[in-house]
Amino acid sequence: MDFEIGRAKRARRAYAFDDIAVVPSRRTRDPEDVSTTWSIDAFTFDIPVLAAPMDSVVSPATAIAMGQFGGVGVLDLEGLWTRYEDAESKLAEIRALPAEDATARMQQIYSAPIQPELITSRLAEIRAAGVPVAGALSPQRTQEHYQTVVNAGVDLFVIRGTTVSAEHVSRTSEPLNLKKFIYELDVPVVVGGAATYTAALHLMRTGAAGVLVGFGGGAASTTRATLGIHAPMATAVADVAGARRDYLDESGGRYVHVIADGGLGTAGDIVKAVAMGADAVMLGTALSRATDAPGGGWHWGAEAHHTELPRGARVKVDQVAPLEQVLFGPSPVADGTANLVGALKRSMATTGYSDVKEFQRVEVVVAPYRVD
Amino acid sequence: MDFEIGRAKRARRAYAFDDIAVVPSRRTRDPEDVSTTWSIDAFTFDIPVLAAPMDSVVSPATAIAMGQFGGVGVLDLEGLWTRYEDAESKLAEIRALPAEDATARMQQIYSAPIQPELITSRLAEIRAAGVPVAGALSPQRTQEHYQTVVNAGVDLFVIRGTTVSAEHVSRTSEPLNLKKFIYELDVPVVVGGAATYTAALHLMRTGAAGVLVGFGGGAASTTRATLGIHAPMATAVADVAGARRDYLDESGGRYVHVIADGGLGTAGDIVKAVAMGADAVMLGTALSRATDAPGGGWHWGAEAHHTELPRGARVKVDQVAPLEQVLFGPSPVADGTANLVGALKRSMATTGYSDVKEFQRVEVVVAPYRVD
Amino acid sequence: MDFEIGRAKRARRAYAFDDIAVVPSRRTRDPEDVSTTWSIDAFTFDIPVLAAPMDSVVSPATAIAMGQFGGVGVLDLEGLWTRYEDAESKLAEIRALPAEDATARMQQIYSAPIQPELITSRLAEIRAAGVPVAGALSPQRTQEHYQTVVNAGVDLFVIRGTTVSAEHVSRTSEPLNLKKFIYELDVPVVVGGAATYTAALHLMRTGAAGVLVGFGGGAASTTRATLGIHAPMATAVADVAGARRDYLDESGGRYVHVIADGGLGTAGDIVKAVAMGADAVMLGTALSRATDAPGGGWHWGAEAHHTELPRGARVKVDQVAPLEQVLFGPSPVADGTANLVGALKRSMATTGYSDVKEFQRVEVVVAPYRVD
Amino acid sequence: MDFEIGRAKRARRAYAFDDIAVVPSRRTRDPEDVSTTWSIDAFTFDIPVLAAPMDSVVSPATAIAMGQFGGVGVLDLEGLWTRYEDAESKLAEIRALPAEDATARMQQIYSAPIQPELITSRLAEIRAAGVPVAGALSPQRTQEHYQTVVNAGVDLFVIRGTTVSAEHVSRTSEPLNLKKFIYELDVPVVVGGAATYTAALHLMRTGAAGVLVGFGGGAASTTRATLGIHAPMATAVADVAGARRDYLDESGGRYVHVIADGGLGTAGDIVKAVAMGADAVMLGTALSRATDAPGGGWHWGAEAHHTELPRGARVKVDQVAPLEQVLFGPSPVADGTANLVGALKRSMATTGYSDVKEFQRVEVVVAPYRVD
Repeated sequence: MDFEIGRAKRARRAYAFDDIAVVPSRRTRDPEDVSTTWSIDAFTFDIPVLAAPMDSVVSPATAIAMGQFGGVGVLDLEGLWTRYEDAESKLAEIRALPAEDATARMQQIYSAPIQPELITSRLAEIRAAGVPVAGALSPQRTQEHYQTVVNAGVDLFVIRGTTVSAEHVSRTSEPLNLKKFIYELDVPVVVGGAATYTAALHLMRTGAAGVLVGFGGGAASTTRATLGIHAPMATAVADVAGARRDYLDESGGRYVHVIADGGLGTAGDIVKAVAMGADAVMLGTALSRATDAPGGGWHWGAEAHHTELPRGARVKVDQVAPLEQVLFGPSPVADGTANLVGALKRSMATTGYSDVKEFQRVEVVVAPYRVD
Repeated sequence: MDFEIGRAKRARRAYAFDDIAVVPSRRTRDPEDVSTTWSIDAFTFDIPVLAAPMDSVVSPATAIAMGQFGGVGVLDLEGLWTRYEDAESKLAEIRALPAEDATARMQQIYSAPIQPELITSRLAEIRAAGVPVAGALSPQRTQEHYQTVVNAGVDLFVIRGTTVSAEHVSRTSEPLNLKKFIYELDVPVVVGGAATYTAALHLMRTGAAGVLVGFGGGAASTTRATLGIHAPMATAVADVAGARRDYLDESGGRYVHVIADGGLGTAGDIVKAVAMGADAVMLGTALSRATDAPGGGWHWGAEAHHTELPRGARVKVDQVAPLEQVLFGPSPVADGTANLVGALKRSMATTGYSDVKEFQRVEVVVAPYRVD
Repeated sequence: MDFEIGRAKRARRAYAFDDIAVVPSRRTRDPEDVSTTWSIDAFTFDIPVLAAPMDSVVSPATAIAMGQFGGVGVLDLEGLWTRYEDAESKLAEIRALPAEDATARMQQIYSAPIQPELITSRLAEIRAAGVPVAGALSPQRTQEHYQTVVNAGVDLFVIRGTTVSAEHVSRTSEPLNLKKFIYELDVPVVVGGAATYTAALHLMRTGAAGVLVGFGGGAASTTRATLGIHAPMATAVADVAGARRDYLDESGGRYVHVIADGGLGTAGDIVKAVAMGADAVMLGTALSRATDAPGGGWHWGAEAHHTELPRGARVKVDQVAPLEQVLFGPSPVADGTANLVGALKRSMATTGYSDVKEFQRVEVVVAPYRVD
Repeated sequence: MDFEIGRAKRARRAYAFDDIAVVPSRRTRDPEDVSTTWSIDAFTFDIPVLAAPMDSVVSPATAIAMGQFGGVGVLDLEGLWTRYEDAESKLAEIRALPAEDATARMQQIYSAPIQPELITSRLAEIRAAGVPVAGALSPQRTQEHYQTVVNAGVDLFVIRGTTVSAEHVSRTSEPLNLKKFIYELDVPVVVGGAATYTAALHLMRTGAAGVLVGFGGGAASTTRATLGIHAPMATAVADVAGARRDYLDESGGRYVHVIADGGLGTAGDIVKAVAMGADAVMLGTALSRATDAPGGGWHWGAEAHHTELPRGARVKVDQVAPLEQVLFGPSPVADGTANLVGALKRSMATTGYSDVKEFQRVEVVVAPYRVD
């Protein structure tokens, strides 16, 4: 459906998770009978959850824990852990910053150079724990550091920016040729954010194993006020799921995974992301609420310390429970911030579905949120 | 009307009671000339109101009062009254719990075993007062306790869960075969919640006398945030009323009653439920506001003490007036929380209708609530 | 446009004044060149404004002032002025009531009997000032008191209830036959509220000179929460204007005036009422804000002291300026609560229209209110 | 799309900037490669930004600064600078006024006569700095003062009122014949506000070089509450852009510039204005937040001191950073109030566009603002 905004402009309606809800159908099922298994490339995970490459969410220790819990933690290879030998003390400093100095001091802290040998040692530390290893670079820095990463060994290579396109144009530097890069690489690559059908389809054609869907829609981001850009997540995920389906046909059977990334604050949002067609979710805020998250009650993204145009801030988050309980319960609260996996299972069971792929077909309604 | 959420997903618009309003038509009528009589099976009630099987709403004493007022109070047969000889002291303890301990202590209190002899004695106490007897079990526990209930004698047997389907699938236990169960039972069965046309139609085919419409949409519930599931009530009731109409034809004349259950906080909501096609309403929050309600100013549902994934909380409610005044006035307030039946009558009179069945045809408009 | 709420129910979208806005077109005009004259029956008024028959808005003194300002003040003939010789002291008492006693005490005060001789003397007082005389009765009391009113002499006879239909049904009493009543009466009758096309068309067929459009939508009313009934005003006025047009044809040229009554809190709302097709407006809240209004900073309607089901309350209002300034400025404020007529003129001038009838054709847009 | 409000009225949906958002497409680009150049008539500007002719935004000094920064500052020729030799002291007085006296005292201050010799000297002061000179008159005063302005020498002549039409009707005075006036004038004229396709098309036919789009939609305005008039900006700009396109054809190639004026509080709004088809933006509130803006933390428009019907107020604004930083960063905040040009460039780069004209084609979605 297409609306006329004015004589010279038309637009499509886009939906946020808060605009929609899942509805139960005629069959129900025991939550115990439901599977949340997710397989990508050669890897199979018990839960379709990736922890986002943000310093407040993933440290080497939480990456190991995520792996042990059946998911995967993606380490930000341009964050504190690859800039500082003693990253813990920087985390502590950021947590303690008074509000008025936070942006300026974070800009300083994050201007320290990335040390390749720290990339190597951090990834080695994760691998040593026997869990899948995943690290993320931004498209701007991929060229510079990917060889270090590959040499260190990763099982999932994540290229993550606010918007990543298969066709970046620059007059001053040779942009990353994603297609060539992925072709030559031996490990599966997950790339994004993409927020539209076309952008995602082009990323799929580069050979990526997965596409991150999102555009800085998280709780710590202000891209709508600063850039006028907003890609409501329900529509974004359903569009990219449409690209997956069309690319599956076009490629003669290559299934590219759709990973919702951003705006997933509660268990209900995760349920809706899968209902829209996501194969897995990448969580930032939701995991930063763990009492053992590196942010220690704070959450921030890379946009918060942009030197010219900050588009987010360090935000305070409620500390709900240890990571394990945030994922699997028992939940001490009733607001959708803990037992995320249990809630997903129960929602699938209540609507009669038994695995994640099947649940993508669940019926949803447009029902904008409002206190009833 | 069907909307594209994104390329891979379409959805229908669903409406909450707050999205709609009744509009007066060309005829008016005296409120005194309006009838609210409701008949189900062999029973006729003066008012189409069932008190919900929740410990904060129905005790044996309030079940008796509801019957004497012309409605029916449904006792929760898995609540405090069948777990404790001295249920009053447990009610008092729950009322007095500090907020931070409420969930944990309620989980303990409700883990005491159900005592079949208490089922028997509680139902006998209600029957002794000469009013219709109604008790509720969850689908999970129906198999275990229904014989006790039937032996004790009930006039209405209620099977109530957040979502009850005619086709529950389980790998570990033999699920309740509703159709067989209802066929063999001698008393009319009311079953739900169901929130969609298909789910309700299947429940109707089991032989139920009535279907509860709802999915944990009450004031004390957080299913939307925790499970991503939400079934806005105006659409849910109108869909299930559509199932009633189609099943009436399919069955050659069996009329299954549609009972709205959830999200009915004010008299205006009750009016709208009937306008959408409900034959009767099951009230929780609205009756918990009675000064003589067992909750004593508090209200909670079974979801509040779920051990793994609580999906609701004990909430404070305003104490408005004694139950009789909450139902029949005079109302000391102007906010729709008292004289519920008087308001229903006045709304029917103002729009020119004389009985509940007829009023299901009243004209409504889509007019989202907003302070005008 | 018709929406499916659920399988068994469809509904039309209805719009409130806050949902719409007037847009300027290609021509502009001097505000001084704009006329707000309004003629009904033999009477011509400088401004299309009636003060509502509410004790907080119209006393005999304000009725006289309204007439002198070029409008008309309608006295409530069932209010304090016809129940008490010394109405002023009762007004003072109501203003001074503590919140917790207000409803109960107002119920007592308004239970005093109506004294026919006071109807006579109050109307005589207004007539003596040389202004048009207008009084209002409810449909329930019209039979009993209309002869007194007619004998006392009125220029406009107003019959006003929350919903007035041409076809009231009662088993216990002979209802007012509006058609016969109006036919036999010698003075023009204004009757309402009506909120739909059909209801208004039937009222027009009774011979009424004007129809009040509304259903208790004012600031002091809670009919939506209590009765589930709501008739958003923009749609109601445009529907009744449609009835006026169709009845004009059907009757071979009888023009029945459409008077918006309710929900007109600001000058902007008045502008929109005319834009929707209103010939005049009846103001309650907007005039209760005058420093010389009888309510003295308070506002209430008859619903506030209903004995069984109060559907409104005595509300505090800001005192903006004397009545003359509220109508004609200069305005000390910029929020649309003063210089109501000046604002109407300016809005007409800005959009290029020169009289009220013409301005009914102005272009409007759907633009739900939101802080921009 | 056309909606029935009621039987006698239809309306089109109009959209505000908050209703829409820009979405990234498949290509991305370096922000450094993006051009914001804007050319009108013989002038080329580095940035498509005009500072609005309001005393809280533009003084001769800020007009010079705006010119040096590559934009243009439009001096209000009916403001303090042409009424008072010592305008600075009046600015200081207005800033210091207590809230309760502000409207009354501002009415006095602005009643001092306009002094033609001050028009001459203020414009000369700006010209002496070697930047483009722009001054604004209201349509009411254009006749009286334009000769002084032309003699003083301006590069852009701005005629700005809340609504300016090509066809003003008056019984008492000879209105300004815009077409004749512009034809005879030697300098390019920018005129507005216009808010609809028709109004703008007629203004284009007068020979104007640019049309201002808006109707008092700024933060300091209350035209919706006072006049019932509202022209949501996204629709207004897209409609006027449609008029530009049609006039381009009709005139055989004359390109009239569309300048969004009002409701542009953040960088995101500026982005959306261009996305809707604006060639440039005129900023009031957004520039009043500069620490070196003449308003010194306050912002007001001419409507705030209207003697009969004030339609706005002096409002407090946050002081964000010096004007240069507000325009070009670095931004100390993440809320879209600083680095306006940097944000526009980044938004264009992220969506793959390289100049302002091209960016008018960017894809947008309807996505009403709501905290996600």
